[in-house]
Amino acid sequence: MTAQAFDPTEFRKALGTFATGVTIITARAADGTPIGLTANSFNSVSLTPPLVLWSLANTSASLDVFRAAEYWAVHVLATDQEELSARFARRGIDKFAGLDIETGHGNTPLLRGCTARFQCRTAFQYEGGDHQIFVGEVLGFDRAESAPLVFHGGRYAHATRRDAPDVKPRAAHLAGSFSEDFLGYLLGRSHFRFFAELRDALDAEGINDMEFYVLSTLTLKPVLTAQELAEGMAGVLDDRRKQALDSLVARTLAAARNRDGVAYELTEHGRDVALRLISRAKALESQVLERLGPDAPVLKSLLNRLLAEIDPTAAAIWQDPAAQRAAE
Amino acid sequence: MTAQAFDPTEFRKALGTFATGVTIITARAADGTPIGLTANSFNSVSLTPPLVLWSLANTSASLDVFRAAEYWAVHVLATDQEELSARFARRGIDKFAGLDIETGHGNTPLLRGCTARFQCRTAFQYEGGDHQIFVGEVLGFDRAESAPLVFHGGRYAHATRRDAPDVKPRAAHLAGSFSEDFLGYLLGRSHFRFFAELRDALDAEGINDMEFYVLSTLTLKPVLTAQELAEGMAGVLDDRRKQALDSLVARTLAAARNRDGVAYELTEHGRDVALRLISRAKALESQVLERLGPDAPVLKSLLNRLLAEIDPTAAAIWQDPAAQRAAE
Repeated sequence: MTAQAFDPTEFRKALGTFATGVTIITARAADGTPIGLTANSFNSVSLTPPLVLWSLANTSASLDVFRAAEYWAVHVLATDQEELSARFARRGIDKFAGLDIETGHGNTPLLRGCTARFQCRTAFQYEGGDHQIFVGEVLGFDRAESAPLVFHGGRYAHATRRDAPDVKPRAAHLAGSFSEDFLGYLLGRSHFRFFAELRDALDAEGINDMEFYVLSTLTLKPVLTAQELAEGMAGVLDDRRKQALDSLVARTLAAARNRDGVAYELTEHGRDVALRLISRAKALESQVLERLGPDAPVLKSLLNRLLAEIDPTAAAIWQDPAAQRAAE
Repeated sequence: MTAQAFDPTEFRKALGTFATGVTIITARAADGTPIGLTANSFNSVSLTPPLVLWSLANTSASLDVFRAAEYWAVHVLATDQEELSARFARRGIDKFAGLDIETGHGNTPLLRGCTARFQCRTAFQYEGGDHQIFVGEVLGFDRAESAPLVFHGGRYAHATRRDAPDVKPRAAHLAGSFSEDFLGYLLGRSHFRFFAELRDALDAEGINDMEFYVLSTLTLKPVLTAQELAEGMAGVLDDRRKQALDSLVARTLAAARNRDGVAYELTEHGRDVALRLISRAKALESQVLERLGPDAPVLKSLLNRLLAEIDPTAAAIWQDPAAQRAAE
């Protein structure tokens, strides 16, 4: 860390290291027009009396309204409100168009679906350089249980709860061996355990793991050439894939489309079995994700990023052939 | 979301929905004593002039020092500074004991290892109910590239960057089939791809995947009973485990410890092979984690939580037998 010359861009970057939530602040103009803007300069100030603050640029088109407004409301945005955040950060559009608005103190427009809302009456307006600091007394508030939208380093972020800091991974007895925190172990274990929950359903259909991987891959497109299948499943126990495919064909779950056997499709029977198993797997996924709560999408997002790093071509098999051609 | 009666606990919870970074604010008392405290009420105010603010309770023992101090410094904490945060949130201890301190404007004590630091001169002190709002002109700052410590809902959190919101998972052609966002797919794919990178090393030792799982499990304890092995690897392709174990014994990589064959240990040759492969796997892990950057520990943390949900007994095999007995 070296001291910076005073460069505005660098100063912004340094300020951006402080993570914040994202809020939308609303008020009603004297002529009745609802106004609102996205701000991350919010913070709590006082409990008794209950005060919060935020600051607004002196160049903002909404400054006069907020200077004159006795009442305003702060909406703390939830993780799924990124679009709302973007909408209220834009200029020259009707930000409230199509929104289902409630009305609060002083006729202030209130948005729905936020993680918290604070209805305020201006207590102080303070000078703050090129911004005006608004301190409001909180007249009422409400709160919902949802994960927050976070802003950090100039972009949106997720917040996930930390594990207790004293949970240290245990090591194996053999020096140099894996600890239980090894990524390969975590991935393998999670994968196998997830599928172990499907074991009964697979056994009932007489399908083993590898056959299930091939079967579900065959649901992705109407017909998959042997090459697409090989590319789509590259790295997935390659030596056993052909064996599993042959077994599916022998049991009339899949069929070679051409006599030369270069492409495969599911039979009607195969589709039935695949959809039963997939339906069960999706139910299992829902249960697991529910237990992870608001952090579930973060896990998926990080696994997607991991795959983008270690397996950039993995997603090719999902692509619509038309889109694929357009991209070429 | 329903409006709350004005309960202080509920008000705190509502305020806690707004995520923040964590800062330590320091100053020098008139008698030369360094003082500092943890605060999350920091925010930026103005770019020209450069102003930031934070607020301090009127009941704080440090209030008089900050009221009198011309200079103070804000330290934005990095994700690995949770202990420092806790230390500066306590009372009645020498918070600076043992810390390697630098000195800034006005002899202000500066901490190291933070993600950003702002050296300030008080510009305004404003009334804020039971708190005092300090607005400081930033005289200098520095910044490091590190992930932030985040506070949300009364506890520490990680911030991870979001994927672009327009990346929607692609669906398969067959209605009811998996999309590429299916957790089972993400886990399986990540797992197989991770191990595919090890393929060359495994092939060089003549070891297949399943044999590698058994081999690395055998490094966890000096001797594993067949039951421990079965419990530790429950769900990991159970039908093939015995076959892999027999193959390892036949090739003198592992040995049945008792003639009755109820316990297994690695031979010296087996340990050599295991450690070579594990060393390679760890190097691979380092490369992958580096590419994920500061979000890597979050992925591990979420996989650990996933495992705790779907496989609560998975970690038993890692436990020190003495600790296990003590827990029983």
